[in-house]
Amino acid sequence: MPEFLVLQRPLEALDELLRNIPPVMLKKITVPTGDSLGRISAEIVFSPEQSPAFRRSTVDGYALIARDSFGSSESLPAFFKVIGEIRMGKKDEYILNKGETVMIHTGGMLPEKCDAVVMMENTQISRSNEIEVFKAVSSGENILEMGEDLNNGEEIISSGKIIRTADIGGLLAVGITEVTVYEKPRIGILSSGDELVNPSKKPEAGQVRDINSSMLAALIEKHGGIPVMYPIMPDDSDKMKEVISGAFKVCDSLIITAGSSASTRDFTAQIVRQLGKPGILSHGVNIKPGKPTILAVCGGKPVIGLPGNPVSALVIAILFVIPMVKKLSGITRQFPLIRGKAKISVNLASVSGREDYWPVKFIESDSEIIAEPIFYKSNLIFTLVKADGLVIVPADANGIAAGELIEFIQVE
Amino acid sequence: MPEFLVLQRPLEALDELLRNIPPVMLKKITVPTGDSLGRISAEIVFSPEQSPAFRRSTVDGYALIARDSFGSSESLPAFFKVIGEIRMGKKDEYILNKGETVMIHTGGMLPEKCDAVVMMENTQISRSNEIEVFKAVSSGENILEMGEDLNNGEEIISSGKIIRTADIGGLLAVGITEVTVYEKPRIGILSSGDELVNPSKKPEAGQVRDINSSMLAALIEKHGGIPVMYPIMPDDSDKMKEVISGAFKVCDSLIITAGSSASTRDFTAQIVRQLGKPGILSHGVNIKPGKPTILAVCGGKPVIGLPGNPVSALVIAILFVIPMVKKLSGITRQFPLIRGKAKISVNLASVSGREDYWPVKFIESDSEIIAEPIFYKSNLIFTLVKADGLVIVPADANGIAAGELIEFIQVE
Repeated sequence: MPEFLVLQRPLEALDELLRNIPPVMLKKITVPTGDSLGRISAEIVFSPEQSPAFRRSTVDGYALIARDSFGSSESLPAFFKVIGEIRMGKKDEYILNKGETVMIHTGGMLPEKCDAVVMMENTQISRSNEIEVFKAVSSGENILEMGEDLNNGEEIISSGKIIRTADIGGLLAVGITEVTVYEKPRIGILSSGDELVNPSKKPEAGQVRDINSSMLAALIEKHGGIPVMYPIMPDDSDKMKEVISGAFKVCDSLIITAGSSASTRDFTAQIVRQLGKPGILSHGVNIKPGKPTILAVCGGKPVIGLPGNPVSALVIAILFVIPMVKKLSGITRQFPLIRGKAKISVNLASVSGREDYWPVKFIESDSEIIAEPIFYKSNLIFTLVKADGLVIVPADANGIAAGELIEFIQVE
Repeated sequence: MPEFLVLQRPLEALDELLRNIPPVMLKKITVPTGDSLGRISAEIVFSPEQSPAFRRSTVDGYALIARDSFGSSESLPAFFKVIGEIRMGKKDEYILNKGETVMIHTGGMLPEKCDAVVMMENTQISRSNEIEVFKAVSSGENILEMGEDLNNGEEIISSGKIIRTADIGGLLAVGITEVTVYEKPRIGILSSGDELVNPSKKPEAGQVRDINSSMLAALIEKHGGIPVMYPIMPDDSDKMKEVISGAFKVCDSLIITAGSSASTRDFTAQIVRQLGKPGILSHGVNIKPGKPTILAVCGGKPVIGLPGNPVSALVIAILFVIPMVKKLSGITRQFPLIRGKAKISVNLASVSGREDYWPVKFIESDSEIIAEPIFYKSNLIFTLVKADGLVIVPADANGIAAGELIEFIQVE
């Protein structure tokens, strides 16, 4: 008999799954910083330099000694003699006497004794090599000091961080052209079902193409894992046990799409239970679609059993498989899935006490997104193909009234 | 002199830019469906089959002729003789006489005369090969009809659609193992600045490493373009004109990070103006950071001039370059960037009339995300390295009070 004894709340079930995944055990490799977008840093990186490495101007203007400008104003400008122009990318040294200044561009290197820059807009050329300054500047104004952005030895990125565009910029800014990252985790993808055939084959009467394996492979690759696809298993407990045990040895995690019948799902659970401790954490999640989900960690390796129905499989993959792959990849800090808000176009009924993910099509208007529910029966993948997003009907709602704002996630 | 005559509102400027990009002119190529995630479909795809291809059960239970169950209830069950079990993936035909039924699993193929399935939960085995049915079913109940998900000849995906995991599933479900997509657009990345050196070089006094080119390349690749990186240009209008014109001929779009000084930015604008019509659409956008942005379309090719400051460059890249690359790639329907909401931890001042993007660090609490602003000076890339997101202070706000909910985008 199916054992949906305790249906866990989705977020609690996810928390428990992630908590049971041990710290990352993947190998470390070195990649060029420019190619590291989306990879997971495997070591803390400290800066070998300070940034900026020299005092820079943050504006176009005139470098001077701040106190020489004190008291200047629109009605009583101070006059300065322009003794030169700082070239970009050069160390041009000027010795300024009282009342002297040099022209400087944004990013230019300040001469040693200068301690401020007056903006171009607050000056006016009075005659050749002379300017009027209309606004006093204080010491340090419009200047970046050495090391103001980053000090020598300061941490740039922590270990277990997903490397973003900005991080690539930060690493390269101090000359770090290689970075140590984790290898990607190998995620085994297994499907069972006597009715399943490979998508390239023409199904006989009663057969359907296995689409879950390819969908999961694409999703796992997008989110940082290496998908390892296994041939379709028959609904036979001995054969399934053999294939699953073999895959478990060589992969860092398994995703099993169980056969359609309750009995196949049951022996999938039995096989998972024998893979290692702690074993099954959730058997059934209080969510629609996706109730018959199995979440397990066996001997340190996460194992997720997905419903065979492709719509359920994909929803559960977005909510559970993606965060699992990220945790397994070595990411130490994950934020919740970003959710947008849309206005629901019609009343949407729902069973209280269960979180509902309902496929919707977006209609854009000037100021908002309107979500039009797509009504569907179980199993219909084309419902999701037509959908732009899934609106989330919270567990404590009996439904959503037309015109209410409701959170959504995008279909992956 | 800089010509910030009219500062356009960011969304209006983006709309105008996208409107001026002509319909896609990229070549078409064929890729395996399983490898097409994130590619842009270049043709409408119609289904060569119907799905499901046979009448399937959506539950585990007993297939029967619906009218035979009429009148049955908890108190007055109907008795059925079980004459067999439908095997998964097989076409098992049974001729049912009145009061006969066959066992069926989810996804199993219905015998021809059966028109409903009664769920396992609403039955009980009374003796060998006999069940009691406690609930009447109506014709069509718990059944998917042939073609109910998708009809033969029906559109699966339109042209100009970004292919998602669900679309891969939909295509494979009807045996489409190859799909025609657009080639990726080539985006030229050019930086000028006498102070810039390649990130692998040790800068001399007054020099800094060029980080914008590598950040833009990573971002463009992530969002579907092919980055074409050019060597750093000196701040010399003749040399810049030569390099920019050459790149313009071979690329589908250019991103130019202008030198730091106002004069270099001015002659960048002059060069862009000469590339073709309509030319510059926005010169200056009412946003912080990123005001001195140039948005242009020249002879059908978008050209974006970014501020040299890496923080501005990255913010503008997220807001303008990504949607531009998507439009250029052939995507016909884009949704606004999904924004989350966070509670701001302290008062945040802002200039009314200008949209402010402020870097923040997220602090998670049980029920919400708290955004802690990072206070910064212009030019500091490590501000963005430390930031998780950018909160958006709307143009009509004078600032945000501590505790208010505010929209954010994630740092890329």
